[in-house]
Amino acid sequence: MSNDQAIKQRCRGPYRAINFAEKLKLFDDQWQARVVAEMNDYQFKLVRIEGDFVWHEHADTDETFIVLDGQLRIDMRDGSVLLSAGEMFVVPKGTEHKPYAEHEVKLLLIEPRGVKNTGGDINERTAANDVWI
Amino acid sequence: MSNDQAIKQRCRGPYRAINFAEKLKLFDDQWQARVVAEMNDYQFKLVRIEGDFVWHEHADTDETFIVLDGQLRIDMRDGSVLLSAGEMFVVPKGTEHKPYAEHEVKLLLIEPRGVKNTGGDINERTAANDVWI
Repeated sequence: MSNDQAIKQRCRGPYRAINFAEKLKLFDDQWQARVVAEMNDYQFKLVRIEGDFVWHEHADTDETFIVLDGQLRIDMRDGSVLLSAGEMFVVPKGTEHKPYAEHEVKLLLIEPRGVKNTGGDINERTAANDVWI
Repeated sequence: MSNDQAIKQRCRGPYRAINFAEKLKLFDDQWQARVVAEMNDYQFKLVRIEGDFVWHEHADTDETFIVLDGQLRIDMRDGSVLLSAGEMFVVPKGTEHKPYAEHEVKLLLIEPRGVKNTGGDINERTAANDVWI
Protein backbone atom coordinates (compact mmCIF):
# COMPACT_ATOMS: atom_id res chain seq x y z
CA MET A 1 0.00 0.00 0.00
CA SER A 2 1.38 3.41 -0.91
CA ASN A 3 1.66 6.16 1.64
CA ASP A 4 -0.94 8.06 -0.34
CA GLN A 5 -3.39 5.18 0.08
CA ALA A 6 -2.48 5.03 3.75
CA ILE A 7 -3.36 8.70 4.17
CA LYS A 8 -6.70 8.17 2.44
CA GLN A 9 -7.48 5.26 4.76
CA ARG A 10 -6.96 7.52 7.76
CA CYS A 11 -9.37 10.17 6.46
CA ARG A 12 -13.11 10.14 5.97
CA GLY A 13 -15.32 12.30 3.79
CA PRO A 14 -13.86 15.05 1.62
CA TYR A 15 -10.87 15.76 3.89
CA ARG A 16 -7.23 14.75 3.43
CA ALA A 17 -4.19 15.13 5.64
CA ILE A 18 -1.17 16.70 3.95
CA ASN A 19 1.94 14.60 4.51
CA PHE A 20 5.11 16.63 3.93
CA ALA A 21 7.39 13.65 3.17
CA GLU A 22 4.86 12.23 0.73
CA LYS A 23 4.51 15.54 -1.10
CA LEU A 24 8.28 16.02 -1.24
CA LYS A 25 8.63 12.70 -3.07
CA LEU A 26 6.66 14.19 -5.95
CA PHE A 27 9.41 16.56 -7.07
CA ASP A 28 13.17 16.83 -6.84
CA ASP A 29 14.04 20.13 -8.47
CA GLN A 30 15.48 22.80 -6.20
CA TRP A 31 14.36 26.39 -5.63
CA GLN A 32 10.90 25.68 -7.13
CA ALA A 33 8.34 25.90 -4.35
CA ARG A 34 5.15 23.82 -4.55
CA VAL A 35 1.97 24.96 -2.84
CA VAL A 36 0.38 22.23 -0.69
CA ALA A 37 -2.29 24.16 1.22
CA GLU A 38 -3.88 27.54 1.75
CA MET A 39 -5.11 29.20 4.95
CA ASN A 40 -7.19 32.26 4.08
CA ASP A 41 -4.92 34.22 1.71
CA TYR A 42 -1.71 32.54 2.91
CA GLN A 43 0.02 29.63 1.23
CA PHE A 44 2.03 26.69 2.58
CA LYS A 45 4.81 25.78 0.17
CA LEU A 46 7.35 22.96 0.15
CA VAL A 47 10.73 23.67 -1.39
CA ARG A 48 14.13 22.01 -1.71
CA ILE A 49 17.07 24.39 -1.71
CA GLU A 50 20.82 23.96 -1.87
CA GLY A 51 23.58 26.52 -2.26
CA ASP A 52 23.26 30.26 -2.19
CA PHE A 53 20.32 32.47 -3.06
CA VAL A 54 20.22 36.18 -3.88
CA TRP A 55 19.75 38.98 -1.38
CA HIS A 56 16.15 40.16 -1.48
CA GLU A 57 13.40 41.53 0.70
CA HIS A 58 9.63 41.41 0.88
CA ALA A 59 8.50 44.99 1.42
CA ASP A 60 4.94 44.13 2.41
CA THR A 61 5.10 40.93 4.42
CA ASP A 62 6.89 38.75 6.93
CA GLU A 63 7.98 35.34 5.62
CA THR A 64 8.09 32.10 7.63
CA PHE A 65 10.64 29.29 7.20
CA ILE A 66 10.14 25.92 8.91
CA VAL A 67 12.92 23.35 8.37
CA LEU A 68 11.67 19.79 7.77
CA ASP A 69 14.97 18.11 6.92
CA GLY A 70 18.54 19.38 6.72
CA GLN A 71 19.99 22.69 7.79
CA LEU A 72 19.31 26.22 6.53
CA ARG A 73 21.18 29.43 7.19
CA ILE A 74 19.37 32.70 6.66
CA ASP A 75 21.68 35.68 6.46
CA MET A 76 20.44 39.15 7.27
CA ARG A 77 22.63 42.25 6.92
CA ASP A 78 23.01 42.45 10.72
CA GLY A 79 22.97 38.80 11.72
CA SER A 80 21.92 35.27 10.80
CA VAL A 81 20.10 32.19 12.00
CA LEU A 82 21.04 28.56 11.44
CA LEU A 83 17.93 26.37 11.44
CA SER A 84 17.69 22.59 11.79
CA ALA A 85 14.68 20.27 11.44
CA GLY A 86 11.98 21.22 13.95
CA GLU A 87 12.96 24.87 13.93
CA MET A 88 11.37 27.97 12.43
CA PHE A 89 12.16 31.61 11.82
CA VAL A 90 10.10 34.54 10.64
CA VAL A 91 11.99 37.01 8.45
CA PRO A 92 10.53 40.41 9.31
CA LYS A 93 8.89 42.46 6.59
CA GLY A 94 11.33 44.70 4.75
CA THR A 95 14.42 42.86 6.04
CA GLU A 96 17.01 41.96 3.42
CA HIS A 97 17.82 38.26 3.67
CA LYS A 98 19.60 35.49 1.79
CA PRO A 99 18.92 31.80 2.39
CA TYR A 100 21.87 29.41 2.14
CA ALA A 101 22.18 25.64 2.47
CA GLU A 102 25.46 23.76 2.25
CA HIS A 103 23.54 20.54 1.55
CA GLU A 104 19.98 20.21 0.30
CA VAL A 105 17.43 21.30 2.89
CA LYS A 106 13.69 20.69 2.74
CA LEU A 107 11.54 23.58 3.90
CA LEU A 108 7.98 24.58 4.56
CA LEU A 109 7.47 28.23 3.63
CA ILE A 110 4.43 30.20 4.76
CA GLU A 111 3.60 33.56 3.23
CA PRO A 112 0.73 35.40 1.55
CA ARG A 113 -0.40 34.14 -1.84
CA GLY A 114 1.46 35.87 -4.65
CA VAL A 115 4.73 36.62 -2.87
CA LYS A 116 7.67 36.29 -5.27
CA ASN A 117 10.68 34.28 -4.09
CA THR A 118 13.01 37.10 -5.12
CA GLY A 119 11.00 39.82 -3.36
CA GLY A 120 10.77 43.12 -5.23
CA ASP A 121 13.24 42.02 -7.91
CA ILE A 122 12.69 39.88 -10.98
CA ASN A 123 15.82 38.06 -12.09
CA GLU A 124 17.13 34.69 -13.22
CA ARG A 125 16.30 33.22 -9.80
CA THR A 126 12.64 34.27 -9.88
CA ALA A 127 10.58 31.05 -9.81
CA ALA A 128 7.11 30.21 -11.04
CA ASN A 129 4.49 31.08 -8.47
CA ASP A 130 1.35 29.29 -7.32
CA VAL A 131 2.41 25.84 -8.55
CA TRP A 132 0.40 23.25 -6.61
CA ILE A 133 1.35 19.67 -5.91
CA MET B 1 25.41 23.29 27.31
CA SER B 2 21.63 23.70 27.20
CA ASN B 3 19.75 23.53 23.94
CA ASP B 4 18.88 27.17 24.43
CA GLN B 5 22.58 28.05 24.55
CA ALA B 6 23.14 25.87 21.51
CA ILE B 7 20.51 27.81 19.58
CA LYS B 8 22.11 31.11 20.56
CA GLN B 9 25.49 29.85 19.36
CA ARG B 10 24.00 29.14 15.98
CA CYS B 11 22.55 32.63 15.60
CA ARG B 12 24.21 36.01 15.18
CA GLY B 13 22.87 39.48 15.84
CA PRO B 14 19.34 40.05 17.12
CA TYR B 15 17.86 36.91 15.51
CA ARG B 16 16.92 33.59 17.15
CA ALA B 17 15.71 30.32 15.71
CA ILE B 18 12.56 28.95 17.35
CA ASN B 19 13.05 25.31 18.33
CA PHE B 20 9.71 23.56 18.85
CA ALA B 21 11.02 20.80 21.16
CA GLU B 22 12.86 23.35 23.28
CA LYS B 23 9.76 25.53 23.64
CA LEU B 24 7.57 22.53 24.46
CA LYS B 25 9.84 21.69 27.41
CA LEU B 26 8.80 24.98 29.02
CA PHE B 27 5.23 23.90 29.78
CA ASP B 28 3.32 20.69 30.33
CA ASP B 29 -0.30 21.75 30.80
CA GLN B 30 -2.71 20.65 28.09
CA TRP B 31 -5.15 22.71 25.99
CA GLN B 32 -3.29 25.96 26.82
CA ALA B 33 -1.63 27.21 23.64
CA ARG B 34 1.58 29.26 23.84
CA VAL B 35 2.49 31.76 21.15
CA VAL B 36 6.05 31.33 19.86
CA ALA B 37 6.08 33.62 16.81
CA GLU B 38 4.06 36.02 14.71
CA MET B 39 3.95 36.50 10.95
CA ASN B 40 2.10 39.72 10.13
CA ASP B 41 -1.19 39.35 12.05
CA TYR B 42 -0.95 35.56 12.33
CA GLN B 43 0.35 33.63 15.33
CA PHE B 44 2.24 30.35 15.65
CA LYS B 45 1.16 28.53 18.81
CA LEU B 46 2.38 25.34 20.45
CA VAL B 47 -0.14 23.28 22.36
CA ARG B 48 -0.37 19.87 24.02
CA ILE B 49 -3.76 18.23 23.81
CA GLU B 50 -5.17 14.91 25.00
CA GLY B 51 -8.74 13.62 25.04
CA ASP B 52 -11.77 15.24 23.52
CA PHE B 53 -12.50 18.88 22.82
CA VAL B 54 -15.82 20.63 22.18
CA TRP B 55 -17.42 21.13 18.78
CA HIS B 56 -16.77 24.67 17.60
CA GLU B 57 -16.17 26.71 14.49
CA HIS B 58 -14.27 29.83 13.50
CA ALA B 59 -16.68 31.91 11.45
CA ASP B 60 -14.06 34.28 10.04
CA THR B 61 -10.93 32.24 9.46
CA ASP B 62 -9.33 28.99 8.42
CA GLU B 63 -7.21 27.29 11.10
CA THR B 64 -4.03 25.28 10.52
CA PHE B 65 -2.92 22.24 12.53
CA ILE B 66 0.60 20.79 12.11
CA VAL B 67 1.38 17.69 14.19
CA LEU B 68 4.86 17.68 15.74
CA ASP B 69 4.57 14.55 17.89
CA GLY B 70 1.78 12.04 18.41
CA GLN B 71 -1.47 11.61 16.57
CA LEU B 72 -4.47 13.94 16.26
CA ARG B 73 -7.92 13.26 14.91
CA ILE B 74 -10.01 16.20 13.75
CA ASP B 75 -13.68 15.38 13.37
CA MET B 76 -15.87 17.42 11.09
CA ARG B 77 -19.63 16.81 10.76
CA ASP B 78 -19.10 15.16 7.37
CA GLY B 79 -15.73 13.48 7.79
CA SER B 80 -12.44 13.44 9.67
CA VAL B 81 -8.68 13.42 9.31
CA LEU B 82 -6.14 11.50 11.36
CA LEU B 83 -2.82 13.36 11.46
CA SER B 84 0.61 12.07 12.49
CA ALA B 85 3.90 13.92 12.95
CA GLY B 86 4.91 15.64 9.74
CA GLU B 87 1.34 16.14 8.61
CA MET B 88 -0.92 19.18 8.47
CA PHE B 89 -4.53 20.05 7.85
CA VAL B 90 -6.36 23.33 7.36
CA VAL B 91 -9.85 23.43 8.86
CA PRO B 92 -11.89 25.60 6.48
CA LYS B 93 -13.52 28.76 7.79
CA GLY B 94 -16.98 28.16 9.20
CA THR B 95 -16.54 24.38 9.44
CA GLU B 96 -17.57 22.80 12.73
CA HIS B 97 -14.75 20.66 14.06
CA LYS B 98 -13.62 18.82 17.17
CA PRO B 99 -10.01 17.83 17.83
CA TYR B 100 -9.40 14.53 19.63
CA ALA B 101 -6.22 12.78 20.78
CA GLU B 102 -6.20 9.36 22.42
CA HIS B 103 -2.72 10.09 23.80
CA GLU B 104 -1.07 13.47 24.23
CA VAL B 105 -0.22 15.10 20.92
CA LYS B 106 2.00 18.13 20.40
CA LEU B 107 0.78 20.59 17.80
CA LEU B 108 1.73 23.76 16.01
CA LEU B 109 -1.36 25.88 15.38
CA ILE B 110 -1.38 28.78 12.95
CA GLU B 111 -4.22 31.27 12.90
CA PRO B 112 -4.85 35.00 13.07
CA ARG B 113 -4.03 36.79 16.32
CA GLY B 114 -7.02 36.85 18.67
CA VAL B 115 -8.77 33.67 17.52
CA LYS B 116 -10.39 31.92 20.49
CA ASN B 117 -9.81 28.17 20.86
CA THR B 118 -13.56 27.59 21.27
CA GLY B 119 -14.53 29.65 18.24
CA GLY B 120 -17.67 31.75 18.64
CA ASP B 121 -18.51 30.21 22.03
CA ILE B 122 -17.11 31.03 25.45
CA ASN B 123 -17.29 28.10 27.84
CA GLU B 124 -15.26 26.17 30.42
CA ARG B 125 -12.83 25.08 27.70
CA THR B 126 -12.05 28.62 26.52
CA ALA B 127 -8.33 29.18 27.17
CA ALA B 128 -6.28 32.29 27.78
CA ASN B 129 -5.20 33.91 24.55
CA ASP B 130 -1.96 35.53 23.44
CA VAL B 131 0.23 33.82 26.07
CA TRP B 132 3.82 33.88 24.83
CA ILE B 133 6.60 31.50 25.74
